Amino acid sequence: MTDILALDATDLIAEVTACRLSHRAVAEAYLERIATREPEVEAWAFHDPQLVRDAADRRDAAGTAGPLAALPVGVKDVIDTCDMPTGYGSAAYAGFRPAWDAPCVVQAKAAGALILGKTVSTEFAMASPGKTRNPWNPAHTPGGSSSGSCAAVAAGMALMGFGTQTAGSVIRPASYCGVVGYKPTIGLLEAAEIKVLAHTLDTLGLITRSVRDAALIASVLAGRPGLALRELPQSAPRVGLFRTPPFDAAEPGTLAALEHARARIEAAGGQVTEIAVPADFIATHALHAAVMGWEVTRALAHERGPLWEALTPVTRAFLTEKAQIDAPAYDAARAALPAQRAALAAAIEGVDVLLAPAAPGPAPEGLASTGAPAFNTPWTLLQMPALSLPAIVSGGLPVGVQVIGRKGEDARTLAAAAWIEACLDAPKGIR
Amino acid sequence: MTDILALDATDLIAEVTACRLSHRAVAEAYLERIATREPEVEAWAFHDPQLVRDAADRRDAAGTAGPLAALPVGVKDVIDTCDMPTGYGSAAYAGFRPAWDAPCVVQAKAAGALILGKTVSTEFAMASPGKTRNPWNPAHTPGGSSSGSCAAVAAGMALMGFGTQTAGSVIRPASYCGVVGYKPTIGLLEAAEIKVLAHTLDTLGLITRSVRDAALIASVLAGRPGLALRELPQSAPRVGLFRTPPFDAAEPGTLAALEHARARIEAAGGQVTEIAVPADFIATHALHAAVMGWEVTRALAHERGPLWEALTPVTRAFLTEKAQIDAPAYDAARAALPAQRAALAAAIEGVDVLLAPAAPGPAPEGLASTGAPAFNTPWTLLQMPALSLPAIVSGGLPVGVQVIGRKGEDARTLAAAAWIEACLDAPKGIR
Repeated sequence: MTDILALDATDLIAEVTACRLSHRAVAEAYLERIATREPEVEAWAFHDPQLVRDAADRRDAAGTAGPLAALPVGVKDVIDTCDMPTGYGSAAYAGFRPAWDAPCVVQAKAAGALILGKTVSTEFAMASPGKTRNPWNPAHTPGGSSSGSCAAVAAGMALMGFGTQTAGSVIRPASYCGVVGYKPTIGLLEAAEIKVLAHTLDTLGLITRSVRDAALIASVLAGRPGLALRELPQSAPRVGLFRTPPFDAAEPGTLAALEHARARIEAAGGQVTEIAVPADFIATHALHAAVMGWEVTRALAHERGPLWEALTPVTRAFLTEKAQIDAPAYDAARAALPAQRAALAAAIEGVDVLLAPAAPGPAPEGLASTGAPAFNTPWTLLQMPALSLPAIVSGGLPVGVQVIGRKGEDARTLAAAAWIEACLDAPKGIR
Repeated sequence: MTDILALDATDLIAEVTACRLSHRAVAEAYLERIATREPEVEAWAFHDPQLVRDAADRRDAAGTAGPLAALPVGVKDVIDTCDMPTGYGSAAYAGFRPAWDAPCVVQAKAAGALILGKTVSTEFAMASPGKTRNPWNPAHTPGGSSSGSCAAVAAGMALMGFGTQTAGSVIRPASYCGVVGYKPTIGLLEAAEIKVLAHTLDTLGLITRSVRDAALIASVLAGRPGLALRELPQSAPRVGLFRTPPFDAAEPGTLAALEHARARIEAAGGQVTEIAVPADFIATHALHAAVMGWEVTRALAHERGPLWEALTPVTRAFLTEKAQIDAPAYDAARAALPAQRAALAAAIEGVDVLLAPAAPGPAPEGLASTGAPAFNTPWTLLQMPALSLPAIVSGGLPVGVQVIGRKGEDARTLAAAAWIEACLDAPKGIR
């Protein structure tokens, strides 16, 4: 009998499409896994087994298999759904039900995916953590804000989780949970009807077990068949090692992950070039803070007004700090972006992708903080596609590396990431 | 006794701030006006006088006057409100109530404005008209999609209406209704929690009686005090006459409005230079269609899926046509934008603003169509600030001219528009 939980998304969809597995059988395997692991991991903000069984049975009865047939999906709770409550990670919206499914949910359902529930988000995908624990060690944070989606995929409770990133909310928790996090070029995946934080930064992403899964799912959701990876690229990508400043924030685990990746890529015949970081690149952190500060202060007007008293102290402190940015600071930050883009473009000429830290180190102990986005904000600001790939295990916790491509070059980035992933030989299997 | 309805927003706010008018007095004057005019105009999708009186009394009891004190506002029905239903102009969402006010509504309320109700939008701010009639002649369309906001301001039932523009939905109906329509640079006014059509195009705008009102209100909502116009600019703006292609779509009324504007500006000592339209500028229409087609097809996924049968035939036809755009066409359109921007920038060097048609002509007869956005889509695509200013009356209906500025130069654009408005000497008063 097929070990359903051992299949990645690509293989699972193939089995269902070939009628060797029913939607219902997939549903039951995942429901059982959730029943087993959820008490410790607490990845789900909402999960109703009956909804899942009903959807699976409807699919089986229809006798058709979509391009994401039976894919077990977790939907981050900042994404609107009409048949499940949408709380945006906040007690202030607990039990609210929008009148629609967000486009990404409609697309996933239409492609045959099984929506297993809503996954835990920090409050409004910002800094105030939810209940989720790291499946590798429940004393550690899963990272955030896409905490539940990353933990669910790591624990084998879903094969894909929707995540969103405005600072480091896909890449960092993916690194902490030992899964693949894919933050596409902004706009590649439709982000309407997802809680808005900052128009210039908000990006819908995917959490999966493998790069090929991320590429397949993105190809379907984005309506871009060319993103799917039929096979690994024949030739090694040209990789640029980018020591994202402040690089001294990289802990031994992250340094080891990067060294491991560099050695494995070279051993496989790839070339890793050290990139000279543009002189003023460190300023991207302040630019990100200015852009996010001004935009989030405006987008969260209802929360900063009528809902203020219902927010957590962490969220109130976060929003208060963000509100310090004034219009001239915002305008100056936006005006500085073209020069940053040009300097980076010149620095990375001649490589296909960058290899960089995904997070400062393995997941920190404790659940009070979801960790720092220090190595993520420049790439979010510059709207470039990025993936976190599991690389090593350090002290019993996974550490990823980040692969970054040029804006709009998602196909090339995914292909290079798949090639690198194959070199890395990171520990496989669910936790 | 003050004739409240005769005051523009700037003067009304000053009267309320100086305690010469109460919020309640303003509310009563506008409620009475709505009772008189609404039966013929039908600008409101939702209007509850008691809500307005209660809000006015709370303001008076608090004894404070905000920067938009007692400003009577209509909120386009595609903008979320939690104390009033939000139907997005569609029977499919009739009676739905979001759990929040959109940021622009929170900002307006926090500044002391009185929200009078929701104004009629075409279905999802697209092509299927609502019930609203043109206050100048009820046999004619008010234009769309911001039909109710423009008609309400024209009829004296509000002093400001929120509008949104993805193609020509602020500028065109403003021209048809003889009011000022202001579509700022994209992002100047926060557009979160407004129905998303196309991320690259959607712009929140304002409908007012005068440019100074638009500038004052925008300065408060955008948190940019520099936008307000304390006085008219001393020196005449340098104006470029731009014969937006396809210029042969301009009817006699629009040609006369442009000629009137040119003559008046020159008579007032201003200079009007004929701009050489860049050779390929006509392509902006196709580029807009490609960008909007791809993006709206994705953003309206729920409507194109589960809600399809509940939509009007006009909306279904609209969405079916938009869905013809594929990813390569979309990518090619986005890739063509920098060259368009550069060619235009070179062509308009040396002028402060452009003078161009706002609409093909006066409002067409009939309510089955809201008119064509032919003279609006290039400026929406290029995300440039634009205003429609009432210019002449032709056949009993108003015709506006459009003033357009460079992206991000809203202050300069508003100042120039105010100077031009003062020249135009268009018929004043409510209809």
